[in-house]
Amino acid sequence: MIDGCPPGIALAPEDFAHDLARRATGRTRHTSQRREADGVEILSGVYEGVTTGTPLALLVRNVDARSRDYDRIATRFRPGHADYAYWQKYGIRDPRGGGRASARETTMRVAAAVVAKKWLAERHGVRVRGHLAQIGDIVPRGHDWEAVEANPFFWPDAAQVPELEAFMDALRKSGDSVGARVNVVADGVPPGWGEPVYGKLDAGLAAAMMSINAVKGVEIGDGFASVAQKGSGHRDAMAPEGFLSNHAGGVLGGISSGQRVVCSVAFKPTSSLRLPVKGLDVDGNAVDIVTTGRHDPCVGIRATPICEAMMALELMDQALRHRAQCGDVGEVVPRIPAAPRQR
Amino acid sequence: MIDGCPPGIALAPEDFAHDLARRATGRTRHTSQRREADGVEILSGVYEGVTTGTPLALLVRNVDARSRDYDRIATRFRPGHADYAYWQKYGIRDPRGGGRASARETTMRVAAAVVAKKWLAERHGVRVRGHLAQIGDIVPRGHDWEAVEANPFFWPDAAQVPELEAFMDALRKSGDSVGARVNVVADGVPPGWGEPVYGKLDAGLAAAMMSINAVKGVEIGDGFASVAQKGSGHRDAMAPEGFLSNHAGGVLGGISSGQRVVCSVAFKPTSSLRLPVKGLDVDGNAVDIVTTGRHDPCVGIRATPICEAMMALELMDQALRHRAQCGDVGEVVPRIPAAPRQR
Amino acid sequence: MIDGCPPGIALAPEDFAHDLARRATGRTRHTSQRREADGVEILSGVYEGVTTGTPLALLVRNVDARSRDYDRIATRFRPGHADYAYWQKYGIRDPRGGGRASARETTMRVAAAVVAKKWLAERHGVRVRGHLAQIGDIVPRGHDWEAVEANPFFWPDAAQVPELEAFMDALRKSGDSVGARVNVVADGVPPGWGEPVYGKLDAGLAAAMMSINAVKGVEIGDGFASVAQKGSGHRDAMAPEGFLSNHAGGVLGGISSGQRVVCSVAFKPTSSLRLPVKGLDVDGNAVDIVTTGRHDPCVGIRATPICEAMMALELMDQALRHRAQCGDVGEVVPRIPAAPRQR
Amino acid sequence: MIDGCPPGIALAPEDFAHDLARRATGRTRHTSQRREADGVEILSGVYEGVTTGTPLALLVRNVDARSRDYDRIATRFRPGHADYAYWQKYGIRDPRGGGRASARETTMRVAAAVVAKKWLAERHGVRVRGHLAQIGDIVPRGHDWEAVEANPFFWPDAAQVPELEAFMDALRKSGDSVGARVNVVADGVPPGWGEPVYGKLDAGLAAAMMSINAVKGVEIGDGFASVAQKGSGHRDAMAPEGFLSNHAGGVLGGISSGQRVVCSVAFKPTSSLRLPVKGLDVDGNAVDIVTTGRHDPCVGIRATPICEAMMALELMDQALRHRAQCGDVGEVVPRIPAAPRQR
Repeated sequence: MIDGCPPGIALAPEDFAHDLARRATGRTRHTSQRREADGVEILSGVYEGVTTGTPLALLVRNVDARSRDYDRIATRFRPGHADYAYWQKYGIRDPRGGGRASARETTMRVAAAVVAKKWLAERHGVRVRGHLAQIGDIVPRGHDWEAVEANPFFWPDAAQVPELEAFMDALRKSGDSVGARVNVVADGVPPGWGEPVYGKLDAGLAAAMMSINAVKGVEIGDGFASVAQKGSGHRDAMAPEGFLSNHAGGVLGGISSGQRVVCSVAFKPTSSLRLPVKGLDVDGNAVDIVTTGRHDPCVGIRATPICEAMMALELMDQALRHRAQCGDVGEVVPRIPAAPRQR
Repeated sequence: MIDGCPPGIALAPEDFAHDLARRATGRTRHTSQRREADGVEILSGVYEGVTTGTPLALLVRNVDARSRDYDRIATRFRPGHADYAYWQKYGIRDPRGGGRASARETTMRVAAAVVAKKWLAERHGVRVRGHLAQIGDIVPRGHDWEAVEANPFFWPDAAQVPELEAFMDALRKSGDSVGARVNVVADGVPPGWGEPVYGKLDAGLAAAMMSINAVKGVEIGDGFASVAQKGSGHRDAMAPEGFLSNHAGGVLGGISSGQRVVCSVAFKPTSSLRLPVKGLDVDGNAVDIVTTGRHDPCVGIRATPICEAMMALELMDQALRHRAQCGDVGEVVPRIPAAPRQR
Repeated sequence: MIDGCPPGIALAPEDFAHDLARRATGRTRHTSQRREADGVEILSGVYEGVTTGTPLALLVRNVDARSRDYDRIATRFRPGHADYAYWQKYGIRDPRGGGRASARETTMRVAAAVVAKKWLAERHGVRVRGHLAQIGDIVPRGHDWEAVEANPFFWPDAAQVPELEAFMDALRKSGDSVGARVNVVADGVPPGWGEPVYGKLDAGLAAAMMSINAVKGVEIGDGFASVAQKGSGHRDAMAPEGFLSNHAGGVLGGISSGQRVVCSVAFKPTSSLRLPVKGLDVDGNAVDIVTTGRHDPCVGIRATPICEAMMALELMDQALRHRAQCGDVGEVVPRIPAAPRQR
Repeated sequence: MIDGCPPGIALAPEDFAHDLARRATGRTRHTSQRREADGVEILSGVYEGVTTGTPLALLVRNVDARSRDYDRIATRFRPGHADYAYWQKYGIRDPRGGGRASARETTMRVAAAVVAKKWLAERHGVRVRGHLAQIGDIVPRGHDWEAVEANPFFWPDAAQVPELEAFMDALRKSGDSVGARVNVVADGVPPGWGEPVYGKLDAGLAAAMMSINAVKGVEIGDGFASVAQKGSGHRDAMAPEGFLSNHAGGVLGGISSGQRVVCSVAFKPTSSLRLPVKGLDVDGNAVDIVTTGRHDPCVGIRATPICEAMMALELMDQALRHRAQCGDVGEVVPRIPAAPRQR
């Protein structure tokens, strides 16, 4: 359900296909072999191909559920999963696909963000893009946005793809999984989005990213590297031709600065492995737990469109809130360009 | 203003003194020389020393404002500050003390959290503690909670304090500043706090921490280290005697797991330096900017009580929301201890 | 979508049948002849017949839509309808069934409240009931709760049903419509639900009722009759055996008093008539508007279960919020009974 | 605290004087003799006489509190007051001035609305005005807006003022109190403010009005009179020269129609009387309760500016939310005038 969406945005079921396919499993041997068709049914909020401004309801059904895969875990707490936490909270747990803790849950995030990406691009010229920035110990050597969409890893250096494939094949054979880092950037964000205390843009981005399952860390701009930096090196000098660097990652005081918005996100390795681990059953007895079923050896690989989605949703929310409060603030001080072209 | 606070919590103006003093400037030569007395006036919500359940209003006045210190920046954008972002957003900016972007703003966070810490401790036995975990390139060698409160750096290894003092003295002389990392942990959090989609505990913590001025990164548990980990190493095995490790940092699927909640926060170096930097004035002209006034060479030092405050506020909010929804869920599955004693 | 619903509530698709049938059209000649089957599909949030605490999604499809009925109004503003307001707000309007302004929209309110009614009854012994209290100039002479469910008018005096049928038959023949008043009461609400400033119970009820399409007025307790009352007559005296009257309608200072909660709601007459009225087309030209299609001559008749639904939803929200804040407030002062038995 | 207020609104402490004086007690013998000076201190959010867009904090201290007046009720439940409800909810009660249930609480509503009224007038030409429309059984015979501000009753017919004074004098002597009706209207509201489901304008107004202490009923437009109306008479015909009537009261489908927004509010008679009433003490014993102290014999008299305030606040919130979602919807259909001139 998307409430508060501006009217007049052209929207058809086909618009969802591209990003949902990027997020879907089953496209390569490096992701879960679950088949996600992800057809979107628009239940309300669109008339004659255009959003009406009334609540927009999207429905994506799960067409390849195999609930029997989950029978074995129905009475066990899988380490690294939310099983134990759910049970303690609710006194009951739906074991099928992990319930709301399933990676399936991110489908709707990507679907909702299709609308946000369209609006941001059409109204503000904002472009949100992401790529994988680390997998295990491997980091990109080069950076080429063209490459990102041309390989199943969203990897920005085409030359490294064979290395990644070999790494993932070995990992899959070992029965283990690995973490990953995803970087997301937004170009074209004007200065002024965000709020000074309760609705800070960076706080919103942090919550948005951390709300994705398996995320354990979020950085804006230089992030944790700032800890060892000096102020003279971190602060981004300004000149009439633009910002001279972008350590801030596009946010200052909770408000967009006009620089590229830069966010980096850490994904933990999946805990669903066929390697056994000490766990418990619901009666508190020690058991060895082995997870079969169709799982991703690296959930971070498919996470690039999900991180893009969360950034787009947060940016659009901020843009609307900014327009509410400051819709009639005219230009008082001259706007300078973002940092000189970034790759 | 604190709304929704449970009734019956004993509360007096003196209760605020300890944490506000920990946060205050002017206690050592390593923080800003601004004098913050930070007396708290309770305007409403307390009757005969006890919270009444109606909105609780606290007032802390700024007794050592020197607005003239800010005259020179009234028409200039200081790099690394929110000046430019505010101006573009609002078309106007209050230059005195950075307005809402001032570190003064965190006073109220610490004050509000005094109530949250009391309630968490009294009702649930939850204890929130933090310490400095990195300053520049220096990291703690040992860890002793007793040491943390015995030095002005909230540093967990007393033996390193002379090294830190020398580092800070040299830094101050150089006119530069440095970043820092703060770790915060909560012990005693029961499993079940948090929500599966919109109100995740880790997402709430990420937003809470990132909303503090100068924060650029947030980690839960192993954070970015998870990127290079294998699933077999990351997932926390469980046994009847408790969790066997705590890579998760106490949150799984957005819900507390019963382990210690662990959060790590990156603070950037202050941008207010007497070293000049290229900047702009409000007409778009290039100017060299030098910041005088009383600034912290490392804002991270005083940030430990602020990070504690944000964790306590988030935990208490989650505890109340959990009670709303699940207040009558009894014990269905046995509760196991947190990970074996952590330092 | 229902988020925040407590876990452990037994819930099956059949549970929705009773109240949806009470709300549905097509049961008698006195309501719209549109056929509303209103089968409820539970999309998420229920496992093995019990709510899981995660978001509960219900889907009711419109199986008897006749969009062609709306072709004639697609380019016209019907007086008394939201056509003009929608168009001015959004620049676009979905004419089919009135879009979100359709009475169909109340289906989901009734469905959601099925869950609330169950929980209120099982946890707190709260019972929410309503009846029609006026139609045109006709008011009930007697009051019998048994009668209410035994006639299509939710009328509390069985002897008057023939009179109402004759009235409605004449009205339908004349092509006109009429307003109605619905009374809703909740018995068993404990004292203490509601909040003193922002979340007042009576304010919440007022918003809940006024948010139903066609509602133009809301009263709590004596409502507008209070205007001409003296304080000595209005205030409800208290005695050890209970409240001696109930002019307050169960709310004092925004908080439930332990008396029966009493709410009265005014419904305007439908504007969709086959009698012509001066209107405009979207180009601003004067046109005569005649509405065909299948409309209720008195929308208030079917509104009883809708008003009950909104009261149940508001009460359950308040009960959960009260538990969040005051879940551990024990009995400090003795509880007295509600007013002596009310009919 | 006002958050989200647009920047650039000229605001000085003096701006609050007019409406706070209209609301204040002690101006005539017909209201409480408590002295309310109501000086407003602006704590934040204004710089050089203009709002900055950051949170705006206003402080009004109670300078004439006489807490000893409340000693006698500290252990008793006053019938018609929130004493019993508060105590059952919170297990504690602040008896001084009724705490949050005091009429003092409305001071801040009026203060906040001073900002909203300014913004609505300057940006949109919206004017919010109210008057007393009934007191006991007395209703206005004529209507003259000039008269309203020229008598202490906000009464629209100057000729009736002596009758009202005699009525109030007799009432005061009798020791009793009486209810009142207040009407509030807003002229100049453009079509399109409000939302179709969750944020309806009429629902917002209903909650806003019902949240004022002592309010028991709210009507929009014809309100409860609609119950006996026919659809052919209620619906407001439209013509190129404007709406031909205003039974709707300016809201259709939850969205403003461009007509005058009309709201009518019922105030109950004060329960604080020197006439004794059966009540209870906190141990449940029957007691006779007599209220001394300085109370209004008709709280409705001073309620006119409070009702205006709540309408202004709701309208401004709606205007900002409308701008957020629909800020770039251009004119698609021609706008027609409001109903021909209304008095």
